[in-house]
Amino acid sequence: MIVCVLKKDYATCIFPTSHHSSLTSRLFFSKAIFLLLPENNRTMNKRAFQDYYPDDFNQCYGCGGLNQHGHQLKSYWDGDAAVAKFSPKPYHTSLPGYLYGGLIASLIDCHSTGTASAALYRDQNRPLGSEPAIRCVTASLNVKYLRPAPLSGEITLHATVGTIDGKRVTILTDLFAGGELCAKGEVVAVAVGEKWLQRWL
Amino acid sequence: MIVCVLKKDYATCIFPTSHHSSLTSRLFFSKAIFLLLPENNRTMNKRAFQDYYPDDFNQCYGCGGLNQHGHQLKSYWDGDAAVAKFSPKPYHTSLPGYLYGGLIASLIDCHSTGTASAALYRDQNRPLGSEPAIRCVTASLNVKYLRPAPLSGEITLHATVGTIDGKRVTILTDLFAGGELCAKGEVVAVAVGEKWLQRWL
Repeated sequence: MIVCVLKKDYATCIFPTSHHSSLTSRLFFSKAIFLLLPENNRTMNKRAFQDYYPDDFNQCYGCGGLNQHGHQLKSYWDGDAAVAKFSPKPYHTSLPGYLYGGLIASLIDCHSTGTASAALYRDQNRPLGSEPAIRCVTASLNVKYLRPAPLSGEITLHATVGTIDGKRVTILTDLFAGGELCAKGEVVAVAVGEKWLQRWL
Repeated sequence: MIVCVLKKDYATCIFPTSHHSSLTSRLFFSKAIFLLLPENNRTMNKRAFQDYYPDDFNQCYGCGGLNQHGHQLKSYWDGDAAVAKFSPKPYHTSLPGYLYGGLIASLIDCHSTGTASAALYRDQNRPLGSEPAIRCVTASLNVKYLRPAPLSGEITLHATVGTIDGKRVTILTDLFAGGELCAKGEVVAVAVGEKWLQRWL
């Protein structure tokens, strides 16, 4: 028996070890239940923006999947917005019980530049990760701290694309903690030139 | 014999264990050589702004001396400016060889809020750490990234006090890396009310 579990935002297949299913049949069932999910809830099979970065680009302390010491933030499209989740450690504190403002700025920065790159790919009707690579750096970062963010539970970052003007992209990112909007960020990101990128490619 | 070593930016007294000097005489000699130093080089006997925070306030990931996982930034007056130095770790990277922009924002944030608190003490002609405690939180943080900051050597943060308007202080902080100005920050910090502070005092 193959058990398929399908919930609002979660789906999986359980293949008992006694079941001699082939890899093909496992993939078939996984794909089938994935397609049963609403489109916005298929992120578990999606790759994050950052997963498309080449290895040499994937070292960022904020979002590089290969930086073992870093935050390893992952950003995904959710319709026209981009979303990331992050679970802070107990030591990511400012005043006891509250999240460190510098971390809030860091997460907004990384989520916004990742979203800016993805927005440029989308604007050019190109799949993420296709060549030539698009990678954005931060020109300016503005954060307004609306209320102290509780250091408990998961943080959600929600970004929308403001404007795209050539290589210059403005991203608006809201940060939620404890279910409340705690900070608003505005990041101007700029796609770096091919010549500069070639130093790492 | 008491050996006093006096260099351009370093001074100490060595008291051999065989010397039965009293604590009073030790303090006298330490104070004497300290006063022989140029004023700007007396930081070794100074306490950082953050050293005056009560223990419960001293947990910040960016500048709390008691946060073993954090950056433990230390800020000092240097005339009318405030200065901090920081040596990043190799993993504080963005693109290989360059400093992580989120860390730049974090350091500007902590150095600026620390300077804002110190500026309010100074504005009120009160010594740092005197009661009632003054502690500032960030209302807004703006960072302009002027050029990629090399990830090598020491970073210097140089802050000046822009305006003081009641509990609201604007701090302008420049960040230098590799001897060059790499980022400019503007932080609006607000002194938190006595009632809020009492939660941790």
